[in-house]
Amino acid sequence: MKTRRDFIKSTAVAGAAFSILPSSIVFSKSAESKVRLGFIGVGARGQNHLELALDRDDVEVVAICDIQQRMIDMSLGLVANSGKAKPQIILDGPQGYKKLLENKDIDAVIIATPWEWHTRMCIDAMNAKKYVGCEVITGTTVDECWEIVKTSEKTGMPMMMLENVCYRRDVMAIMNMVRQNIFGEMIHLQGGYQHDLREVKFNDGKHIYGHGAEFGEKGFSEAQWRTQHSVTRNGDLYPTHGIGPIAMMTNINRGNRFTQLVSYSTKSRGLHEYTVKVGGENHPNTKVNFKLGDVVTTMIRTANDETILLQHDTNLQRNLDGCE
Amino acid sequence: MKTRRDFIKSTAVAGAAFSILPSSIVFSKSAESKVRLGFIGVGARGQNHLELALDRDDVEVVAICDIQQRMIDMSLGLVANSGKAKPQIILDGPQGYKKLLENKDIDAVIIATPWEWHTRMCIDAMNAKKYVGCEVITGTTVDECWEIVKTSEKTGMPMMMLENVCYRRDVMAIMNMVRQNIFGEMIHLQGGYQHDLREVKFNDGKHIYGHGAEFGEKGFSEAQWRTQHSVTRNGDLYPTHGIGPIAMMTNINRGNRFTQLVSYSTKSRGLHEYTVKVGGENHPNTKVNFKLGDVVTTMIRTANDETILLQHDTNLQRNLDGCE
Repeated sequence: MKTRRDFIKSTAVAGAAFSILPSSIVFSKSAESKVRLGFIGVGARGQNHLELALDRDDVEVVAICDIQQRMIDMSLGLVANSGKAKPQIILDGPQGYKKLLENKDIDAVIIATPWEWHTRMCIDAMNAKKYVGCEVITGTTVDECWEIVKTSEKTGMPMMMLENVCYRRDVMAIMNMVRQNIFGEMIHLQGGYQHDLREVKFNDGKHIYGHGAEFGEKGFSEAQWRTQHSVTRNGDLYPTHGIGPIAMMTNINRGNRFTQLVSYSTKSRGLHEYTVKVGGENHPNTKVNFKLGDVVTTMIRTANDETILLQHDTNLQRNLDGCE
Repeated sequence: MKTRRDFIKSTAVAGAAFSILPSSIVFSKSAESKVRLGFIGVGARGQNHLELALDRDDVEVVAICDIQQRMIDMSLGLVANSGKAKPQIILDGPQGYKKLLENKDIDAVIIATPWEWHTRMCIDAMNAKKYVGCEVITGTTVDECWEIVKTSEKTGMPMMMLENVCYRRDVMAIMNMVRQNIFGEMIHLQGGYQHDLREVKFNDGKHIYGHGAEFGEKGFSEAQWRTQHSVTRNGDLYPTHGIGPIAMMTNINRGNRFTQLVSYSTKSRGLHEYTVKVGGENHPNTKVNFKLGDVVTTMIRTANDETILLQHDTNLQRNLDGCE
């Protein structure tokens, strides 16, 4: 299986997390002006960011925060491997991140927690005068997104949504070709998140990916919280992998803007079928009614009369091998 | 350039035009019960159907009708090459087809005329008790489509829309795999008409394809009438190449039906640019305001909760060679 983690590793997005910071801070030659980072959430994804930070001589990892001992221990292993100094550890429940924000030695925070925590953490961090880099999905409602914008404007603190696909080397190459007008005027663009995530959404409570049909309290890592969004919500839950690069190519909010959208969703089959296949037909999760349609297609119009097609397609096998 | 004609030839759709007829008529072994066809419209497309008919020993071409001497002459050349008997010729203006319909020796008609004539010709033919095979686009409005359905029900005469893509060998192979459940349950389907038609929409009034920026009265063949639809209409002007096979794969009107659709259209650039490139910037057609957006995307929902994505994309180059 190609997991999200492998995907991230193989596409070399190092640096994306840090490009929010002024280059004078990030690329300082002076040991005295290292970028001093705090990590809110060091699960599978946060550890990936942590590793990148530990690789850099101009970054200091000041503190890490999580709600699970196992994730703290794994992170400390990464720190030990790097030979860097042990950071402050905060393991104090869901509100523990507020202690990290009180640390005056931290310039900026990287947030890699469940989606539903992102907005409040971003807002609290900007109010604490920290630069913020936050994983997608940063806001799960339009109101949450506006709260983030307003807080950034009020506090003067920059906040960056860490959409890694914008920084894939292949995507950046195409972006460069677009800027050089190699394709001519933009007319219609397509993107999406077309990736079988069933081994992310279900596991055995021990492995990060797969090996079981559990999620929620009996799951581990993303399956603990992410899968619930597929139970209660139907829509493009994760548009940014697709829309991030496209928005840049069409100069959204730089002279262009989205004006309309409409989404259609299919029936939901893939998640249920996976629980039967992996958990057996008597597994309790085979009774779960997943609201999320298997394929969600969205059309978007822009003020400059381009159209954009987005797809969210994360519940189905992507080749015939996966067919029963 | 790969023209529509080449495309049709290379994909071996012989037989599509005739599958409307009961097999007892079409495949009769008896010389006495040949299928007796009349052709309404023997332009480029109609001649293609005529050639297929002339190839068959169980088909008799009784009459051909057109409004242009050149098309009649080209058709008679095809008949002469085949060694078959010369058919009745009707060259009597736009209403001439009614004379063909009066011919009692004709069982069935093939209609291959401009789109805007299809509905009235289909209805007149059914009322004259002819079986009807009509080229797409058969009706250009929903009302026209209903008129055809009601006339067929009233007269008892079958009418078939000749969507050739349904009968491409590759498409039929996939259809067969769908019926055998090789892909499992249908969830989301995509299709479209993604074909650079600029050399169909413009020519020099002599060649069928390309060599000029003319259309309408100064154009020839499809450019004489088809291009005008791109001037006055914006939408998926030609959905059937895509929706035909998909409708069959999702059992539309055989237990399933389309329930909703929405279309978005882009800006219009390709046709204007072509008139400049081929006709020069002072060509009168560079002043034409083409309403048709270059890419029209349509999402369709079905009663069985599949979604379908259709695209109409006929005004732009399809590779970088075509870029300026």
